[in-house]
Amino acid sequence: MSNPILEWMQENIGKSMGEGAPSPVGRWLNGTLRDAQEGALVADFVVRPEMTNPVGLLHGGMIATIMDDFIGATIIALGRDGFYTTIDLSVDYFASASEGEVVTAKTRLVKAGQRVIHGECDLFNAEGRLLARGRTNLLRVQVRE
Amino acid sequence: MSNPILEWMQENIGKSMGEGAPSPVGRWLNGTLRDAQEGALVADFVVRPEMTNPVGLLHGGMIATIMDDFIGATIIALGRDGFYTTIDLSVDYFASASEGEVVTAKTRLVKAGQRVIHGECDLFNAEGRLLARGRTNLLRVQVRE
Amino acid sequence: MSNPILEWMQENIGKSMGEGAPSPVGRWLNGTLRDAQEGALVADFVVRPEMTNPVGLLHGGMIATIMDDFIGATIIALGRDGFYTTIDLSVDYFASASEGEVVTAKTRLVKAGQRVIHGECDLFNAEGRLLARGRTNLLRVQVRE
Amino acid sequence: MSNPILEWMQENIGKSMGEGAPSPVGRWLNGTLRDAQEGALVADFVVRPEMTNPVGLLHGGMIATIMDDFIGATIIALGRDGFYTTIDLSVDYFASASEGEVVTAKTRLVKAGQRVIHGECDLFNAEGRLLARGRTNLLRVQVRE
Repeated sequence: MSNPILEWMQENIGKSMGEGAPSPVGRWLNGTLRDAQEGALVADFVVRPEMTNPVGLLHGGMIATIMDDFIGATIIALGRDGFYTTIDLSVDYFASASEGEVVTAKTRLVKAGQRVIHGECDLFNAEGRLLARGRTNLLRVQVRE
Repeated sequence: MSNPILEWMQENIGKSMGEGAPSPVGRWLNGTLRDAQEGALVADFVVRPEMTNPVGLLHGGMIATIMDDFIGATIIALGRDGFYTTIDLSVDYFASASEGEVVTAKTRLVKAGQRVIHGECDLFNAEGRLLARGRTNLLRVQVRE
Repeated sequence: MSNPILEWMQENIGKSMGEGAPSPVGRWLNGTLRDAQEGALVADFVVRPEMTNPVGLLHGGMIATIMDDFIGATIIALGRDGFYTTIDLSVDYFASASEGEVVTAKTRLVKAGQRVIHGECDLFNAEGRLLARGRTNLLRVQVRE
Repeated sequence: MSNPILEWMQENIGKSMGEGAPSPVGRWLNGTLRDAQEGALVADFVVRPEMTNPVGLLHGGMIATIMDDFIGATIIALGRDGFYTTIDLSVDYFASASEGEVVTAKTRLVKAGQRVIHGECDLFNAEGRLLARGRTNLLRVQVRE
């Protein structure tokens, strides 16, 4: 089952999100979309110098930002009315990536309820090693008539 | 009890961290240091367009980045030998901040063990409202001779 | 501002919750209520053998259970209509308690919105040392007419 | 690759852990072991009245206890020397189970480093629906000679 937003993403696989990502942060992260299915997106990101910590590794907060933003894009790609706000976001870190490396983010929506959505995102390096795993709970914003 | 790093921070209160922050991410965030005590720092950050989500609010991942980076600076300001790596980072979100607003981050080290450090960070808006609270566990990196 | 549930708790300070706690788990935990204010409760719990881990310390999951149950009691003590369901619960552990010790749990509601409640709970030993800190997000259950 | 503890578990599949579980809490939970592989265990648990919340559902803290204890058992089944202490534990809740139901817990060790172990546990109902997912970071306890 598709929708206009998801279809647009699928047509843009292989292109950078530097202009098309839904959020300014997403455009700044400038990832390249690799796959788009309902509830599951994949993109690559280059670790740029401004994304690093004091010892030249991809910054933990930046990993959280990639995950939060890309799960957000996954929800937008459901094509639903309305907007979801983040209740919480958490990330566990297993291994590092260095400046210049390419990392791959894969999202999945574990529970896509109407009120509450629970999403996860895994981050891998080019060798397929799991660098970090994150999860987030989001709540549908109520619109008052 | 002071140390050279903490003393340097105290001499630089009121100045932006755009050049002096320990990490490239910290320099990109470009906060202004407001207070520096052992285990507790305070800084203001302006919400710039590139830090926002699709509806113009300070992006949740960017809030996580501010917290992670500033807790990291708080640990560096302890003046210890060695480096701590993040095991996990999590943030709860209570209210939003818009592009152009100034937000204030306040860190505290709840447990500053030699092996494990647990830090927290609160983010407030200019009216003193608590926007988000984050926490992180870090582990001392072992150095092999 | 009081309410019948909070008043009842205040009249029962010093008594065990083995019969009066709102939940079967709370009655099993059998704590003793020490203070009751709107949004903030305090109780002591004895570490019984069936609450311990393989090395005779208060089990991490049991700490999570004390915190989850007691924050739940704190919400019930707000005297609101309706029921709140837990979205997530997380705990950070700093130090241990042994079988036979008395631990004290102190709750606080950081954000008590109508839709979302964010609560925290600190656990201390008899010397006032912080053993663990937990937090939880709860969502109001919708009632369909 | 096996070890005596894992072999013992494999011989006891189908038996209740009411006597054999490594911890008093595990014995109290009284689950029935269903499968045992290195780094991954499966067990069923009956939702008893003393495990429920005020509305007769499996208590969130008890879910955390099942997950924490069973991931602990999974680590013990690695057959390593030494003991691991929990740094943090967090659980996301998706659906409920009622008193009398049987729930199934499945653990996996995502990262089994020598110093840090990251484990996850999923809880399902009898229809295979995912009720909750939890994760925990543990740190090897240093032994001083």
